[in-house]
Amino acid sequence: MSQRTPSPPLKSPIQEIINDLYNRYREVHTGEVATYIPELGKANPDKLAISVVTADGQVYEAGDTQQTFTIQSISKPFTYGIALEDNGRSAVIDKIGVEPTGEAFNSISLDPATGRPLNPMINAGAIATTSLVEGKTTKQKMHRILDAFARYTGRKMDVDNNVYLSESETGHRNRAIAYMLRNFDIITDDPLPSLEAYFMQCSILVNCRDLGMMAATLANGGLNPLSGTRAVIGDYVESMLSVMGSCGMYDAAGEWIYNVGMPAKSGVAGGILAVLPGQLGIGVFSPRLDKHGNSVRGIGICRELSQRFDLHMFHVSRSGRTVIRHSGHGGLTFSNRMRLESETDLLREHGNQIETLELQGELVFSTAEIVIRESIKKADKADYFILSFRHVQVVDLVAAGLIKDLALEMVNAGKTLVLSGTRHLPVLEKVLKKELTSESFNQLQWIQDTDIALEQCENLLIQSHTTLHHSGHLANLGESLLLKGFRSGEIQLIESLVKKCNYKKGDNIINVKDPATELYFLMKGKVSAWIDISGTDGKRVATFTSGMVFGEMALLDRAPRSARVTADTDLECYSLSLSDLDAFAEKNPQLMIHIMRNLAELLAQRLRKANAEISALYK
Amino acid sequence: MSQRTPSPPLKSPIQEIINDLYNRYREVHTGEVATYIPELGKANPDKLAISVVTADGQVYEAGDTQQTFTIQSISKPFTYGIALEDNGRSAVIDKIGVEPTGEAFNSISLDPATGRPLNPMINAGAIATTSLVEGKTTKQKMHRILDAFARYTGRKMDVDNNVYLSESETGHRNRAIAYMLRNFDIITDDPLPSLEAYFMQCSILVNCRDLGMMAATLANGGLNPLSGTRAVIGDYVESMLSVMGSCGMYDAAGEWIYNVGMPAKSGVAGGILAVLPGQLGIGVFSPRLDKHGNSVRGIGICRELSQRFDLHMFHVSRSGRTVIRHSGHGGLTFSNRMRLESETDLLREHGNQIETLELQGELVFSTAEIVIRESIKKADKADYFILSFRHVQVVDLVAAGLIKDLALEMVNAGKTLVLSGTRHLPVLEKVLKKELTSESFNQLQWIQDTDIALEQCENLLIQSHTTLHHSGHLANLGESLLLKGFRSGEIQLIESLVKKCNYKKGDNIINVKDPATELYFLMKGKVSAWIDISGTDGKRVATFTSGMVFGEMALLDRAPRSARVTADTDLECYSLSLSDLDAFAEKNPQLMIHIMRNLAELLAQRLRKANAEISALYK
Repeated sequence: MSQRTPSPPLKSPIQEIINDLYNRYREVHTGEVATYIPELGKANPDKLAISVVTADGQVYEAGDTQQTFTIQSISKPFTYGIALEDNGRSAVIDKIGVEPTGEAFNSISLDPATGRPLNPMINAGAIATTSLVEGKTTKQKMHRILDAFARYTGRKMDVDNNVYLSESETGHRNRAIAYMLRNFDIITDDPLPSLEAYFMQCSILVNCRDLGMMAATLANGGLNPLSGTRAVIGDYVESMLSVMGSCGMYDAAGEWIYNVGMPAKSGVAGGILAVLPGQLGIGVFSPRLDKHGNSVRGIGICRELSQRFDLHMFHVSRSGRTVIRHSGHGGLTFSNRMRLESETDLLREHGNQIETLELQGELVFSTAEIVIRESIKKADKADYFILSFRHVQVVDLVAAGLIKDLALEMVNAGKTLVLSGTRHLPVLEKVLKKELTSESFNQLQWIQDTDIALEQCENLLIQSHTTLHHSGHLANLGESLLLKGFRSGEIQLIESLVKKCNYKKGDNIINVKDPATELYFLMKGKVSAWIDISGTDGKRVATFTSGMVFGEMALLDRAPRSARVTADTDLECYSLSLSDLDAFAEKNPQLMIHIMRNLAELLAQRLRKANAEISALYK
Repeated sequence: MSQRTPSPPLKSPIQEIINDLYNRYREVHTGEVATYIPELGKANPDKLAISVVTADGQVYEAGDTQQTFTIQSISKPFTYGIALEDNGRSAVIDKIGVEPTGEAFNSISLDPATGRPLNPMINAGAIATTSLVEGKTTKQKMHRILDAFARYTGRKMDVDNNVYLSESETGHRNRAIAYMLRNFDIITDDPLPSLEAYFMQCSILVNCRDLGMMAATLANGGLNPLSGTRAVIGDYVESMLSVMGSCGMYDAAGEWIYNVGMPAKSGVAGGILAVLPGQLGIGVFSPRLDKHGNSVRGIGICRELSQRFDLHMFHVSRSGRTVIRHSGHGGLTFSNRMRLESETDLLREHGNQIETLELQGELVFSTAEIVIRESIKKADKADYFILSFRHVQVVDLVAAGLIKDLALEMVNAGKTLVLSGTRHLPVLEKVLKKELTSESFNQLQWIQDTDIALEQCENLLIQSHTTLHHSGHLANLGESLLLKGFRSGEIQLIESLVKKCNYKKGDNIINVKDPATELYFLMKGKVSAWIDISGTDGKRVATFTSGMVFGEMALLDRAPRSARVTADTDLECYSLSLSDLDAFAEKNPQLMIHIMRNLAELLAQRLRKANAEISALYK
């Protein structure tokens, strides 16, 4: 069937969705660039960039993600993390509350009795936060802040001096707040070095990729997923996310959590950062703002990403890096079909054209993302792809949609995709049937038993490389593997002992507990050995084709049969009675040694195959 | 070592912690029982109950968890779920906002312009919510509400009529609110049937177990984990949790999310319900209230549970039901050590006394809980327990602490616990070393290679059942498995062919690529065959002890050696040159047939063992 033809690299459907969002939001032109300081007014209002970074560092992005802008209020939760590290949680809580205000970002919102700012996301709380960063001077504090931010982004950070000077010159309201904090002893020494550090911290230059990476670092428990550097003590990440969640989006915090469901923070230069804990981080940059001071396109894109991928933090997902139970290729892991030596050699050489991904757990966005990423990576060299869903408990609609996108990519690239073990997940077939053209859908293979799926792929691979040596009829007994190396006169001796017998498809040739009185040379057709397991269709333990022998274990122990053997097709066999063989062995001992050696060799081959499979399964 | 002696069932450390919490909080007597209606004042103030129910239905509880009380405000998010089902999200949002108020529960908090209640957790929003439940009459609405609540609890629900009448008689403020809502057309028809339904809904009788189960159902995406019944459309669970998260704890929502980190709801009868999405639900009942109207003990217990188990919703966890990669017992899965037939028979019969749990992913509270639950379940019949951490990426302190508790339980019960593949997780050994007495710690086995760990357990099991037949020296060649069934004269013939050779521990007897010129009868000691894998210690593929042969594959193909064989101890062997054996076979063909049959039988045994292992691994 599918011949190995060069095909373009597969496209990630997730990247496609980001591209589509980018293209649609480029056409949105509402909102105004912030102008409260002249420097911000100079931004190009049409810029747009999106970066989605997973908690293990995979980046999906679109637009001008390297364009720098000032971080502004998005710095607040990160400086809060530094203050927690430098003072401990209770000392920080003493100075700054964690209650939402329901007021705008520049409200003063101090507790009337204690002067304690209600939370660290409003300016008063943020200035108090910066005052808690280690260091007496502005320079010392900024050193600490720039170092910390660099651990999140993975690159050295700088301040935009023009924006900083502009902020400082026009920051009268913040200066008033700083002195109010000094008045209430929230700041206990000169407030000006802290205030200047606050202005500088807001003027740190970031790009959209930086925001995505900072968010992903929080999603990853404070560990930068690319550099492996710890950006903040893991225990404080939950506090940073808590204040972002309850106070991050100013006067619409409840609505944001309700609809978008991710702790987030925006800045007036047009940046937005959002975090789905344990899963991913989002950065968006677009300078036009709504009346709340949030990026219009940024808000829209976050909403759509959340809805499209079900990223709400309360969407029940047991995400995991362990969605892939086992991944193996056909050169290492084999089906239970017994193969001729030449076929096994061919599978060893070319078997990496068959890839199997055995999945497990729950398929939601974050786990499906990993499946797609792995599939695309492996599909480059593989023509045959088996996705086994046997151990998957749930597939949600988002994941089913992504599998559909992946299937379409694979079919279009001429790959053979087999979906296995899907019977308990009707939603999967339903979504694929509904959303693919019938032409594409019909190119998918649905085979419930993963072992049989693997056998089919092996057959296709072998067919594409060669005509099967023994696809049909054996000319004579001498081609049987048990008689390998026998001379023609010797074969005639055996022929005089055997009895021809034919079976119809479906016949049981051997039943469990039958006495073991003969072995069979298979001349034409296919048989399988089965172990019966109550309540199931049984388990296929081996399949034999022409040239092979079955029932051969009787040569070793004359114990009753332990498996049922059934004809998969009409058969032609020769049976050899063991008592006849015993008599023959008396007269022809050298030939019997030869038969026994051949048998031992067949067993040794099967053992090597089994051991390779165990190693692969344990990998 | 550890003999099979009857031991009491193992205690779950999680249950122990719940018991401890219960015992400590029983001594807390602050707070006052609600008295705003006389019926509530009759509650026994000393009652205390705790129920923790995991998202897959495991219940841990203490105290009088069957004592009923009225649900009160805890009904609000659940009725909100019904309103969402009956009207869709946007119609509900049109009538009721989702913003926190920062005010007390009985504040009126209507938007001054539109009359829209700020959120569904304050009384105004809750009465509006009940008005949105399907049905014209109080009876129709209550039918819908009781049915829905029964799906969460798994039992039929009833109303406490005395409390209801008392609420209705004294509910003047709520009556005022209802008419205010009618005035603003938030309620568009007679408000009284909805108001009465609201009073009744608050008077539904629940017990602490019910609260735990309702919470667990939300944690499980709306599916009751015990009955499998869907209690609410999954898509609305995130909305219910969102309003609980931002508005559930009245005027301290920010502080609650910051410190406890779970969406929660309390009722004035003393109930508290908290949800950790995807993981678990908590119910607590204790009637004495603080000045905010929340159960004093309930708040304290929720806080402690959150801290003790790191249950904050932003604690990065990739929880999963799939923390157990593989679970097998020693009667099905074997080490790579070659065994005598009698040993293999013994392992088949008694091997279920060895249990192996191979773990994967991240160990945090929710995944460690599953490990502990499974371990305790399996430990009843097993004396030997292997926990393999090879595929575990992270163990947090909570999980390490729980593993420590489990280890102590096992050691105290006389079980042999082997911790395997822990080298990359130093925190585990550190916590166990620090928190266990050195006597307990020294009873743990730390064996990095899981295969060697399994072998050691097999050895201990075999030793406990029998003296090894061939533990020491073979008396003569006739005891070798390859010569099984040989008569003494026949053995003497073989003895005339072999050469005695001794090796020191650590000697390489066979090297990869050596020509295969002889096979070895092992008379005393132990050897292992290794495949070298660059960058690792190599992989042990087989271990042989006295009575066995090695290098025997040379009998089949005379190809160069494919594995290195190294002496694990000082050895005594006999080597047999293959050319001598060939000459012998010419003269003694029947003996050669016998040798070949014995060889094939050994291979067949190993193959059966390998196939059983593959089946177990695929299970």
